[in-house]
Amino acid sequence: MLMIGGGRPSLSCMAPTPLLDELRAALGENAVLTDPDLLRMHERDEADLCAAGTPLVVTRPRDTEQVVAVIRAAARHGVPVVPQGARTGLAGAANAVDGAVVLSTVAMDEIREIDPVSRIAVVQPGVVNATLAAAVGKQGLWYPPDPGSWESSTIGGNVATNAGGMCCVKYGVTTEYVLGLEVVLASGEVLRTGRRTAKGVAGYDLTRLFVGSEGTLGVITEVTVALRPAPADSLTLVAVFPSTAAAGAAVAAIAARGLTPSLLELLDQTHLRAIEAYQPMGLRTDAQALLLAATDTGSRAADDLAGLAEVCEAAGADEVYAATDAVEAAALLQARRLAHPAMEKFAADAYPGGNGGLVIDDVAVPRGSLAALLDGVARIAAECEVPIGVVGHAGDGNMHPNIVVDRADPASVERGRRAFDEIMRLGLALGGTCTGEHGVGLLKRDWLAQEIGPVGVRVHHAIKSALDPAGLLNPGKVL
Amino acid sequence: MLMIGGGRPSLSCMAPTPLLDELRAALGENAVLTDPDLLRMHERDEADLCAAGTPLVVTRPRDTEQVVAVIRAAARHGVPVVPQGARTGLAGAANAVDGAVVLSTVAMDEIREIDPVSRIAVVQPGVVNATLAAAVGKQGLWYPPDPGSWESSTIGGNVATNAGGMCCVKYGVTTEYVLGLEVVLASGEVLRTGRRTAKGVAGYDLTRLFVGSEGTLGVITEVTVALRPAPADSLTLVAVFPSTAAAGAAVAAIAARGLTPSLLELLDQTHLRAIEAYQPMGLRTDAQALLLAATDTGSRAADDLAGLAEVCEAAGADEVYAATDAVEAAALLQARRLAHPAMEKFAADAYPGGNGGLVIDDVAVPRGSLAALLDGVARIAAECEVPIGVVGHAGDGNMHPNIVVDRADPASVERGRRAFDEIMRLGLALGGTCTGEHGVGLLKRDWLAQEIGPVGVRVHHAIKSALDPAGLLNPGKVL
Repeated sequence: MLMIGGGRPSLSCMAPTPLLDELRAALGENAVLTDPDLLRMHERDEADLCAAGTPLVVTRPRDTEQVVAVIRAAARHGVPVVPQGARTGLAGAANAVDGAVVLSTVAMDEIREIDPVSRIAVVQPGVVNATLAAAVGKQGLWYPPDPGSWESSTIGGNVATNAGGMCCVKYGVTTEYVLGLEVVLASGEVLRTGRRTAKGVAGYDLTRLFVGSEGTLGVITEVTVALRPAPADSLTLVAVFPSTAAAGAAVAAIAARGLTPSLLELLDQTHLRAIEAYQPMGLRTDAQALLLAATDTGSRAADDLAGLAEVCEAAGADEVYAATDAVEAAALLQARRLAHPAMEKFAADAYPGGNGGLVIDDVAVPRGSLAALLDGVARIAAECEVPIGVVGHAGDGNMHPNIVVDRADPASVERGRRAFDEIMRLGLALGGTCTGEHGVGLLKRDWLAQEIGPVGVRVHHAIKSALDPAGLLNPGKVL
Repeated sequence: MLMIGGGRPSLSCMAPTPLLDELRAALGENAVLTDPDLLRMHERDEADLCAAGTPLVVTRPRDTEQVVAVIRAAARHGVPVVPQGARTGLAGAANAVDGAVVLSTVAMDEIREIDPVSRIAVVQPGVVNATLAAAVGKQGLWYPPDPGSWESSTIGGNVATNAGGMCCVKYGVTTEYVLGLEVVLASGEVLRTGRRTAKGVAGYDLTRLFVGSEGTLGVITEVTVALRPAPADSLTLVAVFPSTAAAGAAVAAIAARGLTPSLLELLDQTHLRAIEAYQPMGLRTDAQALLLAATDTGSRAADDLAGLAEVCEAAGADEVYAATDAVEAAALLQARRLAHPAMEKFAADAYPGGNGGLVIDDVAVPRGSLAALLDGVARIAAECEVPIGVVGHAGDGNMHPNIVVDRADPASVERGRRAFDEIMRLGLALGGTCTGEHGVGLLKRDWLAQEIGPVGVRVHHAIKSALDPAGLLNPGKVL
């Protein structure tokens, strides 16, 4: 469109910079947001106690070419770019920095292809996990990764954080399902990685270098995922334990016996009580721990469930019962899925007036050390005098100790931070990792450095510099 | 030991250089080989028609510290280092260059740990695949990756090439089983990547960056692998087809129906005849293609096998029969495993006097394009006037077209090369990759560049430079 005269008039609240003009020219007015409320809304993900800044602008490109335009414009002006999906992350990896260009992929939400023979789907990054799951489900296929946020989080965000979930114990995490990517690099070049084939070893595994890199190496603009045939219906079992140690021992014994449940989750007493308070479901709140297990092995499932029950009883379960039908099984799963909102309510009730804060931690240890981890977290809660509830993917040794703090009380926040650090220290001492599935973001940068050591840190910096020498992409995250 | 006088006397055939002296001081005489026969033996892997040079020396370090010593000494003298395992690779990735230090990991063959609860093993790189398989098998565990070379190839080599095999169709390739690595970098620094836990997202996925990087980024000195419980006994089925297209259609239909065989291999008529000539097994040599399938789903296996049989019949199989017992099933698997030596004999018989050459190709296409690939290879064989037998992992769309040439006849070799290039071109045109499991090495460098394009090549070089700026490690491979 030919503009006559001196260009666009200034807005009163936000002077147009050449950068904003360039972005509007490339993406159109509606995809370049500068409304202060919208900017505030895009400051952070769901991680508590992480720093966040106010972006200069939120962009919503609709295709790869527009992503290139955003990155090139930002690079020309030396303004950092923070990629965002649905901002459901729990490590601050999507938090904005002051003056940044937020690149939101939510408008890139096209499912481009579902191929039942090759068992792949090709999607833009803004497709919501549940949307993809439903679409492939209609063709008898299954996209397994199921993070807690699956109803709202995007595939792009899932890939950028290598999201986990409940099915991982049998079916693995996001990275196992990413065959290929299209990525816009900091240079504005478009890189295609990976393949559409079941196997492939052509060159370095760049696909998996980008998976989990939290937007620090490039912006994902297309994802080719592997699918599985829909699993058989599952059978579900609940085992109630008089101690977390007994529940931990049951998990180890399940693994040692060679059983492969399709779900193996643990809720501690704090969570059982929080869930019952949030939405009464008849959970045994006198139990110290509850294991929720499922098998999806078709005609073998009943035998496998009996095996799980036997192991739980031998490990000291008070009570073991199988869900009588799919409705009861779904209710049990729903109870598990309520852990997060229930604990938020627990924190809000503990410290009224909006002061209840929840630090959602994430630590994974070798399965055999699960009981030691649970014991240790209880000890840390007592020592630091903060309530800590533990919930998580017991079968993977991946626990979420959720630390409740009073935001209005600096001493409480400080005790919460101390507990957080003690849990990280314990996890590493048990041969574990500082993050099983939530990622590093801002929350765990120091602990990542502890875990990988100085050589690992140097290699991370070398790779970051090789791909993003100016530090344009998501500065301050991971490293 | 105190040396008196002017140092070690010169050997007549090989003047000791300061580098050799340093290597002997660090590793001991017996681990530093300069015998010309041994040097020749370490020139190349099993890839035909790939360039290879004569190394200056072959070193056999026994631990990480000695690997560091070799790399530091070579770096000081500006001499390239070529890592080698059992040299069973098929892409020339382990081929020496003139004057290089070969770093053989075969003496690092300790299984350090097997943990049945965490389902992991920790091994040095020189442990033979079959040795690990047997050791974990004694504990009811299973290390799935089973490349054709599994009885002699090493875990380090399997990891460096991201080796595949027959179980991949259900259980995935080597990289799915690598949780963590210890790697000596070109700088001589020791990097630890990954974890011992089932899940972990702490930082960039350096583990998988090293898997499949063919010794160009570092030397692997320890591997932490994930194990599975031993699978149930499998049931095996053979389907005989009047055309390769029908066999390809059967593979697509198996996938579309949501079946997940634990093995799904294809042998074409050339291979059936070569195997019968090599070792008579009663295979139907009049068939155009044979599919070998197995299921290991326990009490569901018979149903699943019936489903496979039904699909094969519907796709036009002449004959479908199930192995009556484990002995017959093992014999069928053995027939498949003889494909490689049988084709070598086929080539030797076709061009006597040691002139029969076999170019073992490796291409993978989306499963739905398998029939088109098989058709295309037959057309290429006719056009280029070279015998090509096709065998491979049909369920993964991963085929090995084996091209027979007369080494003594430059025109035959040239026709073979043309057929090789045409197959690569076809594979890429069908949405495939130039290597499904054998790797790039020397054989496919040009085709890798075709596949990943200029941006992909630039990113590969950037990562190589970031980790090995002087180009010390395995020069000329991959890139």
